[in-house]
Amino acid sequence: RRYRVAVIPGDGIGREVVPEGLRCLRAAADLHGFELETAEFGFASAEYWVRHGEMLPPDWRDVLGGFDAIFFGAVGWPEVVPDHVSLWGSLLRFRRGFDQYVNLRPVRLLRGVRSPLRDREPGDIDFLVVRENTEGEYSSIGGRIFDGTDRETVLQETVMTRTGVDRVLRYAFELAAARPRRHLTWATKSNGISISMPYWDERAEAMARQYPQVAADKDHIDILTAKFVLRPDSYDVVVASNLFGDILSDLGPACAGTIGIAPSANINPDRTWPSLFEPVHGSAPDIAGRGIANPVGQIWSGAMMLEHLGETTAAAGIVAAIESVLDEQPGVLTPDLGGAGTTEGLGKAIATAIGAA
Amino acid sequence: RRYRVAVIPGDGIGREVVPEGLRCLRAAADLHGFELETAEFGFASAEYWVRHGEMLPPDWRDVLGGFDAIFFGAVGWPEVVPDHVSLWGSLLRFRRGFDQYVNLRPVRLLRGVRSPLRDREPGDIDFLVVRENTEGEYSSIGGRIFDGTDRETVLQETVMTRTGVDRVLRYAFELAAARPRRHLTWATKSNGISISMPYWDERAEAMARQYPQVAADKDHIDILTAKFVLRPDSYDVVVASNLFGDILSDLGPACAGTIGIAPSANINPDRTWPSLFEPVHGSAPDIAGRGIANPVGQIWSGAMMLEHLGETTAAAGIVAAIESVLDEQPGVLTPDLGGAGTTEGLGKAIATAIGAA
Ligand SMILES: CC(C)[C@H](C(=O)O)[C@@H](O)C(=O)O
Ligand SMILES: CC(C)[C@H](C(=O)O)[C@@H](O)C(=O)O
Repeated sequence: RRYRVAVIPGDGIGREVVPEGLRCLRAAADLHGFELETAEFGFASAEYWVRHGEMLPPDWRDVLGGFDAIFFGAVGWPEVVPDHVSLWGSLLRFRRGFDQYVNLRPVRLLRGVRSPLRDREPGDIDFLVVRENTEGEYSSIGGRIFDGTDRETVLQETVMTRTGVDRVLRYAFELAAARPRRHLTWATKSNGISISMPYWDERAEAMARQYPQVAADKDHIDILTAKFVLRPDSYDVVVASNLFGDILSDLGPACAGTIGIAPSANINPDRTWPSLFEPVHGSAPDIAGRGIANPVGQIWSGAMMLEHLGETTAAAGIVAAIESVLDEQPGVLTPDLGGAGTTEGLGKAIATAIGAA
Repeated sequence: RRYRVAVIPGDGIGREVVPEGLRCLRAAADLHGFELETAEFGFASAEYWVRHGEMLPPDWRDVLGGFDAIFFGAVGWPEVVPDHVSLWGSLLRFRRGFDQYVNLRPVRLLRGVRSPLRDREPGDIDFLVVRENTEGEYSSIGGRIFDGTDRETVLQETVMTRTGVDRVLRYAFELAAARPRRHLTWATKSNGISISMPYWDERAEAMARQYPQVAADKDHIDILTAKFVLRPDSYDVVVASNLFGDILSDLGPACAGTIGIAPSANINPDRTWPSLFEPVHGSAPDIAGRGIANPVGQIWSGAMMLEHLGETTAAAGIVAAIESVLDEQPGVLTPDLGGAGTTEGLGKAIATAIGAA
């Protein structure tokens, strides 16, 4: 087995955590007898933008389209290029251009990690956020009128399509149906956002009727964020629009200890184009260059990539190695986990644990 | 001094907590020598809707417009009328029709209340959420095309105006300038929502230049929700769009123990129309009718109303009474606070404490 992976470190701590992700992927490949052929690309970075005035080369679809997967760090360096320019010029273009319509983000309180919530132990927090990843509130339609005057008005469109809503709901219901608790919550705000969100509810209700074996209910996003803090154990699969999924997949990992460990998979379930695997955290300019970024989100994203490629045993081995190192080697933990370790130190410890399994 | 107050209990637990709010307001009036003339209205409820097919009488502006303030419970009874119908037919109409463009929501960890966050004590969480309350993501513009087909597409517009954005930002900066920490954070999502949110940032940056004495910074909404959990002590004044403010003002109170105690003031700062005071929590159909709803959010909202009416000492007295009862009388606490008390029991205890001050 041989997989071709495009590697895009991006900006900031993306460049520090990606090498640790690769280190762990190689350890898993050696152990489980498959090959990873990687090609690294410097685009989707502020550096590339300064040189080319674009975030991506014009033929990016051809360049990346033939890979089996994309292993992505983080993009964004607002001192040089505004975030909405760098993100819409790269990551958000991949998601839409490669039709990665599911953004899957597991939230789990791991052994060895301390939750900021009282009385919550490993096992208490273990759910999946399924985020719609191509439409919704993240549209680029809209504009400004009466610029620079008192009448200045800005419009931005939220766009939901039946195709777009149904396919992510179906993915989430299928996931829920295969899990022991068979429970699904859809995030909404249909009491306040009066056109798009009632539509989302309507489609979720229709889908729920097709999955009688799944216990499905809805929570408005305001109370849902409150319940993540008050009752995180009540969630199993949470499916949400693009914006709400974005929020829940940062808040969830915070409740489970740190954003630094959270992985994500931008999946094209139809496999017409490569899927993309990246940590939930961003490029973190505030801590970049200091070698203290937590590489676990990147490494865990690598495990999700192997899972997607069919290397299920290797994927599980990486997650087990992460958990054992966090639990048993407090000396290597990065500052966000309460330790004084480095990116490289933690990455090496996990790679070693993978090989030793 | 004599104030005319319109009382609207609404639905569900609104009807249970409003009487306790009034009990405490009367105790404060007696003690401080002012008069409250109240008139109760049954509209803005599912019951009214069933009878009239509308949430409000056609002349609601005339009926309510002359009052000094509106004391509101909660509206919404989805079994009878869909939430977006009942809310857009009442509460959201008041906010917009009476130009209550600031929704002010204090978040404070009170003595006697246990935060779900580890190691957080009273004093650690004490900030204000200033929510834009008339425009933004809560627009009713949009619609559906190709209904019932695979091409079904739904659009919903976010609307931001310079007037609407600047006035709420100015209010928040003024508030921050008057507080000891003089710190303001604006919520944004300008890296993903690429038209409205960069505009919001632009106006916030312009306003920040007018308030050099305020330390102002921004957080994207995803990481902001995470930081409410991880570092709630780092916030002082948080200003947000309508949707983001909605989310933050449920999540904040959850971090400070319970949604049941959180108050809110829908303020028309120009005083051209009455302001409206209501708890952050909703009508809570799941616990309605059992007499166990927490009345503190309603009572605290009454204190905000008195503050707005100029009865500053009486307002402070109510908040002090709330805090002393929560801290010293565990026997009267409602279930959401970990006790076994009732709505009425807790209301009476606070009213007594007000009178005894
Ligand atoms: C009930 C709902 C429409 C309302 C809102 O979203 O504004 C509520 O959540 C609030 O915060 O006052
Ligand atoms: C950087 C930003 C555009 C992105 C998003 O909002 O999708 C990030 O927060 C994420 O969650 O992947």
